[in-house]
Amino acid sequence: MENKKGSLLYEGKAKKVFAVENDDSLVWLEFKDSLTAYNAQKKAEMEEKGTINLKIATFIFEYLKSNAVESHWLKTFGERDMVCKKVEIIPLEVVVRNTLAGSTAKKFAIEEGTPLKAPLVEFYYKKDELNDPFISDDQILALNICKEQQTLDQLKKEALRVNVLLKDLFAKAKIDLIDFKLEFGRTPEGDIILSDEISPDSCRLWDVNSQEKMDKDRFRRDLGGVIEAYKEVLRRLLEV
Amino acid sequence: MENKKGSLLYEGKAKKVFAVENDDSLVWLEFKDSLTAYNAQKKAEMEEKGTINLKIATFIFEYLKSNAVESHWLKTFGERDMVCKKVEIIPLEVVVRNTLAGSTAKKFAIEEGTPLKAPLVEFYYKKDELNDPFISDDQILALNICKEQQTLDQLKKEALRVNVLLKDLFAKAKIDLIDFKLEFGRTPEGDIILSDEISPDSCRLWDVNSQEKMDKDRFRRDLGGVIEAYKEVLRRLLEV
Repeated sequence: MENKKGSLLYEGKAKKVFAVENDDSLVWLEFKDSLTAYNAQKKAEMEEKGTINLKIATFIFEYLKSNAVESHWLKTFGERDMVCKKVEIIPLEVVVRNTLAGSTAKKFAIEEGTPLKAPLVEFYYKKDELNDPFISDDQILALNICKEQQTLDQLKKEALRVNVLLKDLFAKAKIDLIDFKLEFGRTPEGDIILSDEISPDSCRLWDVNSQEKMDKDRFRRDLGGVIEAYKEVLRRLLEV
Repeated sequence: MENKKGSLLYEGKAKKVFAVENDDSLVWLEFKDSLTAYNAQKKAEMEEKGTINLKIATFIFEYLKSNAVESHWLKTFGERDMVCKKVEIIPLEVVVRNTLAGSTAKKFAIEEGTPLKAPLVEFYYKKDELNDPFISDDQILALNICKEQQTLDQLKKEALRVNVLLKDLFAKAKIDLIDFKLEFGRTPEGDIILSDEISPDSCRLWDVNSQEKMDKDRFRRDLGGVIEAYKEVLRRLLEV
């Protein structure tokens, strides 16, 4: 049976979330052309961004699935749409860093591009009105955002497993995976699965040779060529 | 043999640190009358502050010692001076919170005074030029500030043990121990022991009945009566 787009449930920064008619266990995601940064203080519309990110996210979810990483992704339709399992999002951004860049490099005054001896996992509390603050395991438990350290350990383990797979995938595309952000959700059965999207909006991707940025930092830092870089990431992935 | 004050090694915000003549295993601390807040952006001199804090810190180190908590403190002399074991300071501020207040309450927009169901331990990286940023266990290990999770677990365990003892002590003085900051150091033998000082400069202390602040927040927040409050803390401790 064909899935049919239902009513709008929620409009996010980069995606609209719709119900799926006659199936409460699913959601319908529509990828927008919006780019936002710094908690949406900086915004732009860029033609094709949504369609490129849909293709990249689809490619990555399929690749992860073929490597036994379960996610909410089920099917992609046309240029902008994806049907996913409905999950209850865990309000944590799970960041994996292979090389220091962005907020953590800045916070500790360490030069961007400094490699880490082992991947570092960080949690940020997903709460726009608080600016998604960095949060420790102990704070997550104390504030009851998750109930058990075991859940946090599971998130870290799964994020590190995804890291190994993505690093390998991007390496084949001649891209260094500097860092990326994941979100996870709970299924009605209580399983924790990968959710949201993985795309140049949520990763730092540097060309292996030139170390040029091929991700949202081109937008954040006004480097220009945003869509060209996203397209190049897609082109290289499709050639892997 | 009497200890003799040697040359000035380092001048901190609230204490001067001197060598001890003919004994390299010791340091001589002189408590200053300076009060600083917000990484020393706010400063004042308040007569008697150093002598009151010396008495409070001495009382607390003695109390902890009698409860089998080892610290760097050895002897107190006169009005301002203390001789301590020389340790290599671990560059982490270890904060224990029983009730939410200060930076963590603000960061998560939770009302100051909200009790925690269990004490929360937080680490801050002691580095003035970075403004002592909040840091997670995983970041501490990734940046090689400590080499092993085991050390962090030991710091947390010791800080929680101190918390139980201090909560009990202050309760007898009709004071709620809201939160406090500890520092630890390594002895030449490799033992990790409590260091620095514990005083109203490093604790949040609220009167059990009125919930009035009896600590450095009176200075930070321009509430007045700083020295009177510190004196009252000392008076009540001496009556326990």
